[in-house]
Amino acid sequence: MNIKMGVAKAGIKPSGDYDILVLKFPPSSFGAVFTQNSLAAAPVIYDRLVKEIQEDLSAMVINSGNANAATGEQGIQNTESMAELVSEAFDLYKEDVMVFSTGVIGVQLPMDKIEKGIKTAVENLQELDLELAARAISTTDSFPKYYELEDEIDGKSFHVKGIAKGAGMIHPNMATMLAYIFTDVKISKELLQRTTELVVERSFNSIDVDGCESTNDSFVVIATGESEVEIDDSNKTYFAKKVLEVAVELAKMIVKDGEGATKLIQINIHQAETKEEAKKVAEEIALSNLFKTAMFGNDPNWGRILSAVGQTHFDIDFSKVKLYLGDFLLYSGEPVSFDRKAAENYLKTHKEVTIDLYLGKGEKDWTYYTCDLTYKYVEINAEYTT
Amino acid sequence: MNIKMGVAKAGIKPSGDYDILVLKFPPSSFGAVFTQNSLAAAPVIYDRLVKEIQEDLSAMVINSGNANAATGEQGIQNTESMAELVSEAFDLYKEDVMVFSTGVIGVQLPMDKIEKGIKTAVENLQELDLELAARAISTTDSFPKYYELEDEIDGKSFHVKGIAKGAGMIHPNMATMLAYIFTDVKISKELLQRTTELVVERSFNSIDVDGCESTNDSFVVIATGESEVEIDDSNKTYFAKKVLEVAVELAKMIVKDGEGATKLIQINIHQAETKEEAKKVAEEIALSNLFKTAMFGNDPNWGRILSAVGQTHFDIDFSKVKLYLGDFLLYSGEPVSFDRKAAENYLKTHKEVTIDLYLGKGEKDWTYYTCDLTYKYVEINAEYTT
Repeated sequence: MNIKMGVAKAGIKPSGDYDILVLKFPPSSFGAVFTQNSLAAAPVIYDRLVKEIQEDLSAMVINSGNANAATGEQGIQNTESMAELVSEAFDLYKEDVMVFSTGVIGVQLPMDKIEKGIKTAVENLQELDLELAARAISTTDSFPKYYELEDEIDGKSFHVKGIAKGAGMIHPNMATMLAYIFTDVKISKELLQRTTELVVERSFNSIDVDGCESTNDSFVVIATGESEVEIDDSNKTYFAKKVLEVAVELAKMIVKDGEGATKLIQINIHQAETKEEAKKVAEEIALSNLFKTAMFGNDPNWGRILSAVGQTHFDIDFSKVKLYLGDFLLYSGEPVSFDRKAAENYLKTHKEVTIDLYLGKGEKDWTYYTCDLTYKYVEINAEYTT
Repeated sequence: MNIKMGVAKAGIKPSGDYDILVLKFPPSSFGAVFTQNSLAAAPVIYDRLVKEIQEDLSAMVINSGNANAATGEQGIQNTESMAELVSEAFDLYKEDVMVFSTGVIGVQLPMDKIEKGIKTAVENLQELDLELAARAISTTDSFPKYYELEDEIDGKSFHVKGIAKGAGMIHPNMATMLAYIFTDVKISKELLQRTTELVVERSFNSIDVDGCESTNDSFVVIATGESEVEIDDSNKTYFAKKVLEVAVELAKMIVKDGEGATKLIQINIHQAETKEEAKKVAEEIALSNLFKTAMFGNDPNWGRILSAVGQTHFDIDFSKVKLYLGDFLLYSGEPVSFDRKAAENYLKTHKEVTIDLYLGKGEKDWTYYTCDLTYKYVEINAEYTT
């Protein structure tokens, strides 16, 4: 894929690691989804405008260590300056460039450092290196998050590559989930936007660490169009599944890296009446502090799961409900006896565990990923403060 | 007030303390609000029916230690048996009696113990003793919760007395907030029901410990009509305020007793456009794990508060927003400098702290109570499992 990148250590991150990433590519179709938090950060406000007016994108710039959120008019100006610095270096229009920030809220960007960092990055372009790119956008992440695949349609090959950062809206004032997926298919902006929206629902919008939506969350898919694969109505579902595969892998890495998490929990809802019901039920379980602490305590506490289901207020007949933890049937229309010691042991010995809930209403399903709630989560968020 | 009570140690609670409370009063007007959790416990299903068909109530029976939730058809039969045991003892109809349970989910009631306990309680009636009544309905509560006041309307005195239990949907499988308020005014069932619904919104529906709604939550107001005070349109607001005062005091006790809580946090929202907006904004802050851990860590982290506000997705102009922690102005349309050490010290040295948020949109307000999220919360819910 003809995607070039440059990184720099601009000194924005306290750790001194890479904190500027510049990406340069041919004019490319794109899809983008942003946070719905009404305290949207300056780059999100700017990028939304770019999304409306542009047919294609040619570059992106991301800084980590400072979110440029709750920074008022000055924050918007600083975002535009970042776009200008990159566009001038590559002889583009400002609007060809999207800008992203992640880190501390409420502090103006150190523009002298940003300017030097962008200069270093654009002067040292190299081939796309997913691991290095992921590292440059990380904040409190404990490992770089990237994933790629190659596939073919009608005997013609195409690629999907992604990077992400995030571990909940984590550290004191450190926010944000950022994810970028690159592909070389030919696809219209409109179809790619629809694909992006479908994919985000079943991936980044189906994970939870602590229920907190950040001010900077952004997900962008870039399609350079270099391959011979052209996406249209005949193959759009196949293509979307491949993008989804990459997105789900990245999303799972974010949950695994959730602050203090010791377990990745996959919640599968089956036999819901609608997709919305399936998703909402999954989400209510995923967000329940009582469920999350029970998982930390290796407690097959089905009462907490069903009670969270009931909290959705959907009309559910619990005499038709079946609940599994791994292979253990915990509830089947009424309390059932199960080998509690073995179920506890399953929780104790697995880092990835599965809940399967059958609602007995219809045929819709949904999968959600969450993590447990631990002492470490409280420690990270209460003790390591500004 | 002509309210008699009886208690018994039936052996349902592991602690061996009082776990049966029977209340007997003259046929009384009543208002009642129940959990909206679709996994409603058997007594809630039964009581909803009583609420529909009855004009007045004459008795209530409450057991602690077992929630009779997720117990199917057998659970409903056991609830009806409890009503029958009490109605027979007092020569009432079954439907004159409401039934409540709180405790473990998914286990059938030990009906032999319940029967003996009810027998003991009805044979040992005494005057209403708020402290003892509160103790009999407690599960994991660390102190009994009760409050009373006396006031007058047009020179005629009346009383409002309340008891409650709950500390979040706490202990493994231990659920529920229960609250009962007794008054001696004359009031129609219809007006008392409206009063109850108004009061619950600004009290028990405006508190949070862990965001989990239980299967058994119930709030009932009983008006015996013994006093000479008659409530009608001319004095209903004054009366409602007095009931609200008792309800808020009880609600605050529940939050103070929240599992692992070290702080009671009062969140006042001002200048919202609608009451719904004010309440939702308050609730989103109250439920935020990031905010709750920051409070535990004595961190005046305004970024987490504003980010939670933004998560409501309301159209809020943050350049008009003002945020106070106690007397400290933390944000005023933009980040402002404040004495961080002094603000931290305020959090460190106060067990009750206040957040005041001005939205700059309108004139509606709302107050919500929450507590911090601590190591102890995780310990209680992860370690002390069944």
